[in-house]
Amino acid sequence: MQAIFEPIATEIPLVEERLNAVAEADFPQLAHLLGHVLQREGKRIRPALTLLAGKFHHYNLELLIPMAAAIELLHTATLVHDDTIDNSTTRRGLPTLSSIWGSEVAVLAGDYLFARSADLVATTGNLRVITLFAQTLMTICSGQLEENFSACDPQQSHQQYYQRSGKKTASLFSAAAESGAVLSQAPEEAVQALKSYGYNLGLAFQIVDDILDFTADEGELGKPVGGDLLQGVLTLPAILFMQQHPEDNPIKEMLAGRDEEANLKRAIESIRNSAIIGESYGIAQDFSAQACHALQVLPDNPPRRALLQLADYVIQCQR
Amino acid sequence: MQAIFEPIATEIPLVEERLNAVAEADFPQLAHLLGHVLQREGKRIRPALTLLAGKFHHYNLELLIPMAAAIELLHTATLVHDDTIDNSTTRRGLPTLSSIWGSEVAVLAGDYLFARSADLVATTGNLRVITLFAQTLMTICSGQLEENFSACDPQQSHQQYYQRSGKKTASLFSAAAESGAVLSQAPEEAVQALKSYGYNLGLAFQIVDDILDFTADEGELGKPVGGDLLQGVLTLPAILFMQQHPEDNPIKEMLAGRDEEANLKRAIESIRNSAIIGESYGIAQDFSAQACHALQVLPDNPPRRALLQLADYVIQCQR
Repeated sequence: MQAIFEPIATEIPLVEERLNAVAEADFPQLAHLLGHVLQREGKRIRPALTLLAGKFHHYNLELLIPMAAAIELLHTATLVHDDTIDNSTTRRGLPTLSSIWGSEVAVLAGDYLFARSADLVATTGNLRVITLFAQTLMTICSGQLEENFSACDPQQSHQQYYQRSGKKTASLFSAAAESGAVLSQAPEEAVQALKSYGYNLGLAFQIVDDILDFTADEGELGKPVGGDLLQGVLTLPAILFMQQHPEDNPIKEMLAGRDEEANLKRAIESIRNSAIIGESYGIAQDFSAQACHALQVLPDNPPRRALLQLADYVIQCQR
Repeated sequence: MQAIFEPIATEIPLVEERLNAVAEADFPQLAHLLGHVLQREGKRIRPALTLLAGKFHHYNLELLIPMAAAIELLHTATLVHDDTIDNSTTRRGLPTLSSIWGSEVAVLAGDYLFARSADLVATTGNLRVITLFAQTLMTICSGQLEENFSACDPQQSHQQYYQRSGKKTASLFSAAAESGAVLSQAPEEAVQALKSYGYNLGLAFQIVDDILDFTADEGELGKPVGGDLLQGVLTLPAILFMQQHPEDNPIKEMLAGRDEEANLKRAIESIRNSAIIGESYGIAQDFSAQACHALQVLPDNPPRRALLQLADYVIQCQR
């Protein structure tokens, strides 16, 4: 990780500063709850993408810092709403907003963060990234709704899964990289390369995340193993398992409401002990390789090397 | 109402068209639920404000129609989240999104609508209204959160109520008018006049709405009388009542959790039969008059006359 962040070691603290400034709200309780959400330090992969993508042409921190902060803030806002919807009580070891202040406050606080992120993007004065940013949130929500509507559908294909994950997860990785490139006035070829890198990286990231939902233990995950499946959400390993075992499949039984607990356990065990985990990793690696391939048009320099390392990092199962 | 909409009679259908186009989403279930939310026809007061405010200088429908539609869409998104938070089952006689599809889908659909509205505003290419739009959503959420945090606080003043209502409601009226003026390249004096008009109009609107929560019957309201008070939200009539009856006050008893139902009933009856309703209307009229006063710098023409009529309309208790 350290190697990835090296080219932007002085800039990441500036992003943190900008995020901390978001907690300075106009009344104390709001400031308090924003402070709570924003102290939850993630890996900052998305803002790193924006900054690294901005390194190939006119590196302008006055534009890139607010953009990177906005990307992280948009991500944070979606997590606040996700946790509220899922009734999650903790995230990264801290109690969720909704578990402390209730779902009403959490919904409104998420909305506030969306608005605040849009306000940050507007400070770039760049209409292309402003539009991209709004459309990315549309895409994310559309992907999450698609996931919601396709829950418990045993017929879904892995293509549908890629499309959904592309919308739900990869779109923000893609927008993070694209906006960095656009704000550094990169030529269109470089913008498209970085956008494609971000999209494929995001898909690899999501697949690994979905694999971990089967292979990690509850302690590492911070939530029950097979949590997606329990909610009827079929991710890549589950879809592959359904395709390879069309008859007598515990997932099918579970989705049909028959002996859910035992069938969930059986499904998790079967997937863990099958070749499907390896297959799924193979697919994540393919997307990661496609991400790297997209960067071939860019010069070999420290930010490009960091991006290549990042593509390698996301397919290691360390979260 | 007809007189108010007359100067924009050909434009309002174009706003409706733009709103209907929002329902054309990228998968059928999303299109279906957006269609459901968007069929719920409101009075379209906010988009009317944008269009009328745009009539004083360079009236440019290519900018004003998406702006007006975005304002209504932002309003719709906040209603979707409000209904979800409040567990409301109907709005304007139609079942709410959350009552049909559940709160998960409703939260995500509201988020989608926020994003879609921001995307519409971005098509104006005007950074001032883009920033205003994002900041208005911040202000609305902050006001709603403030209302939430101040619930059940018997010490709050009417100044706090004005500030909260200013953020929660008047800010969007203000932004609707300001953006219309900005997009028509009005000189700053006219922009400020229309902004001030919108803000004061919004306050008058909110006060009348809060009066109706006490004086209307359940059939007209479509929800229980005294619903705000029941949730611990003190609006202008309740705050005035608390100030005028500091001792032996049923609201105080209710907020302290003593015999809630009987005390709520007693409070509603006392407020209905007191001078407070008239006083509150008087205050709404003052704000409406201030709204009209702000328009004095503008030429006397059909859109100005429509705005004056609108200021009169909102203080009539017809919703």
